Amino acid sequence: MTMKFNSHFNDINESYLFAEVAARTQTFRAANPESDIIKLGIGDVTLPLAPAVIAAMRSAVSEMSEKDTFRGYGPYEGYDFLRESIRGYYGSFGVKIAADEIFVSDGAKSDLGNILDIFSEGGTSLITDPVYPVYVDTNLMAGRKVIFADATEQNDFLPAPDYKVTADIIYICSPNNPTGAAYTLKGLQEWVDYANKTGAVILYDAAYESFISDGGLARSIFQIEGAETCAIEFCSFSKTAGFTGTRCGYTVIPKALEREGLNANKLWLRRQATKFNGVSYVVQRGAEAVFTAEGQKQIRENLAYYKRNARVIADGLDELGIKYTGGKNSPYIWLRCPDNAGSWQFFDLLLNGAQVVGTPGAGFGKNGEGYFRLTAFGSREDTVRAMQRIKKLL
Amino acid sequence: MTMKFNSHFNDINESYLFAEVAARTQTFRAANPESDIIKLGIGDVTLPLAPAVIAAMRSAVSEMSEKDTFRGYGPYEGYDFLRESIRGYYGSFGVKIAADEIFVSDGAKSDLGNILDIFSEGGTSLITDPVYPVYVDTNLMAGRKVIFADATEQNDFLPAPDYKVTADIIYICSPNNPTGAAYTLKGLQEWVDYANKTGAVILYDAAYESFISDGGLARSIFQIEGAETCAIEFCSFSKTAGFTGTRCGYTVIPKALEREGLNANKLWLRRQATKFNGVSYVVQRGAEAVFTAEGQKQIRENLAYYKRNARVIADGLDELGIKYTGGKNSPYIWLRCPDNAGSWQFFDLLLNGAQVVGTPGAGFGKNGEGYFRLTAFGSREDTVRAMQRIKKLL
Repeated sequence: MTMKFNSHFNDINESYLFAEVAARTQTFRAANPESDIIKLGIGDVTLPLAPAVIAAMRSAVSEMSEKDTFRGYGPYEGYDFLRESIRGYYGSFGVKIAADEIFVSDGAKSDLGNILDIFSEGGTSLITDPVYPVYVDTNLMAGRKVIFADATEQNDFLPAPDYKVTADIIYICSPNNPTGAAYTLKGLQEWVDYANKTGAVILYDAAYESFISDGGLARSIFQIEGAETCAIEFCSFSKTAGFTGTRCGYTVIPKALEREGLNANKLWLRRQATKFNGVSYVVQRGAEAVFTAEGQKQIRENLAYYKRNARVIADGLDELGIKYTGGKNSPYIWLRCPDNAGSWQFFDLLLNGAQVVGTPGAGFGKNGEGYFRLTAFGSREDTVRAMQRIKKLL
Repeated sequence: MTMKFNSHFNDINESYLFAEVAARTQTFRAANPESDIIKLGIGDVTLPLAPAVIAAMRSAVSEMSEKDTFRGYGPYEGYDFLRESIRGYYGSFGVKIAADEIFVSDGAKSDLGNILDIFSEGGTSLITDPVYPVYVDTNLMAGRKVIFADATEQNDFLPAPDYKVTADIIYICSPNNPTGAAYTLKGLQEWVDYANKTGAVILYDAAYESFISDGGLARSIFQIEGAETCAIEFCSFSKTAGFTGTRCGYTVIPKALEREGLNANKLWLRRQATKFNGVSYVVQRGAEAVFTAEGQKQIRENLAYYKRNARVIADGLDELGIKYTGGKNSPYIWLRCPDNAGSWQFFDLLLNGAQVVGTPGAGFGKNGEGYFRLTAFGSREDTVRAMQRIKKLL
């Protein structure tokens, strides 16, 4: 017998996207040491944690310092105080879920990867292109087959189901990273109907739902009739409340989601009980504070700040007559590179001509070629200056 | 095509151990509402976080409240400041590892489960019996074959390798949960030699290494010659520094561990980059403080407190002439039930006769029948009172 490591890891393309972005930026900086480069490519937040979150974390740290209030092992699935807060949040936009359908985790990315543990081996996953690379890589690592649904200008970057194609897992991210496109309730209903008819399960990434302001767009897949028998939803405090370095998310698995006698909610509970030990108490108290009246007010102010940045970018592109999606209900702006430039060609143009760094769309899949992603997570000042330079350049 | 969930979950026995302990305790309490029950069965710590850890976490929370010191996404593999501290800690007992061989995580349990991602499908795991149930369950969930190495009184609960048996993964936990037995450097060398000869990989759980005081016992498998080509080590702040509810651990994967061109360190880095997003910054700062001079002094005081509890239990069992292992280099005491009582029979005897709750050994595997686990993580007062009652009873 020879011990073998998982050779499916060989199927993953090394992601050169951000490494290449960093390398080209570094080369430019070396040649132009005095240059003032503005980064509008980052997916990370820049505003600090809200005061309500800070106060809750401080208080929780103090609890951990005293014998009488110290907390050891917590529930694998998250403390009731946080699950109840999340349940109430869903209720605020009309979605009824039970607290024991909510699983608190250290982030949506972990759960989106680990969820494959509860699916049988083999099988096919349908993933939109362009895409957040994690969906593809986790599937390839697990030895699953990946097929793509094209998200293009023709379908407003919102592909509809094709009944000639079948898959057992479908990934939908709305509002989308990288395109910023968001499904309407009606558009999402088509996917739910398709999944219920074909027996597929939808893994719905709602990490950017808090950026939605338009009424007709879906905040949660559980606003859709029938979703409770075909969907799992992943959400995160990362972008909503600036938790990218604090780490907390949650996954909603309806108790009605079953196939051949196996219940997804019970499988995931068992998975988490066996391979996870809950999220830090201090972090869960911080997350709970996000849902207080004070916390909601503060994080809404932060979201408004980022959304005004998105507006600055969108207005600039409008003036230039450049086509884009996103920006209104999303922190991402996905633009068509002008003059039919390639993604990397446009990257070099912006870097050399305006000292602005963005993300070439080609890094998100074949349909990303010719597109470019800008993000609203920078400071106002940088965003305004970047757009002034881009307008001057183009 | 029909979507299927992972039917390997059906292979796992529902763990009734702690549920049954709770149910019997509850029944007794209902019948004896005035009874003063002492729990010596818990594996959770009871002392609060050390002041140095609290100060570091408070300071980190403050950093997160200001724009200039706020931290977003951190490195998947952990901040350098913590990896360097861990590297220095290993150096303090003579083990040389590089910082990039250390991966910070939310706990040893997560990594022990998730590490199977980097191994090929199928395969056989060799696990000692009795055992921490997580090793067995994670393997069954992944569809792997599990075989057992008997840990019995005959081998002092420290099985040696049997060259007639082959497996591609070997689990060793030392000091052991539940038996408290710990391998000598010589005993562990036999396993390392066996693994290198057969090509197996040892997953070494060192979660209780900080309880070791005897010089001849192994603190780390990397004290053993040849371990860097056959072993991965898992460690945790849970018991060392009371992080059971704070969540932090680390895994050491030598860069020399390769099979058929696949490098374990690179595979795990890729796994973590794809399915994990690092540990909370605030928690990592708390963990860093464990390794300062002040932090080490404080956690050593806490460890000494638990070890004195273990001594109280061990002394009581000595007076009673009851055989046991552990207690000296481990927080666990594993005792032979007197008068050839069964594990559950002895559980009922202690509960009814002394109002003391422990853990029946049968819950840890077939070799646990006839044994019983007591833990040193309670308060001094409770531990002393419990042993007084047990001595009176038996």
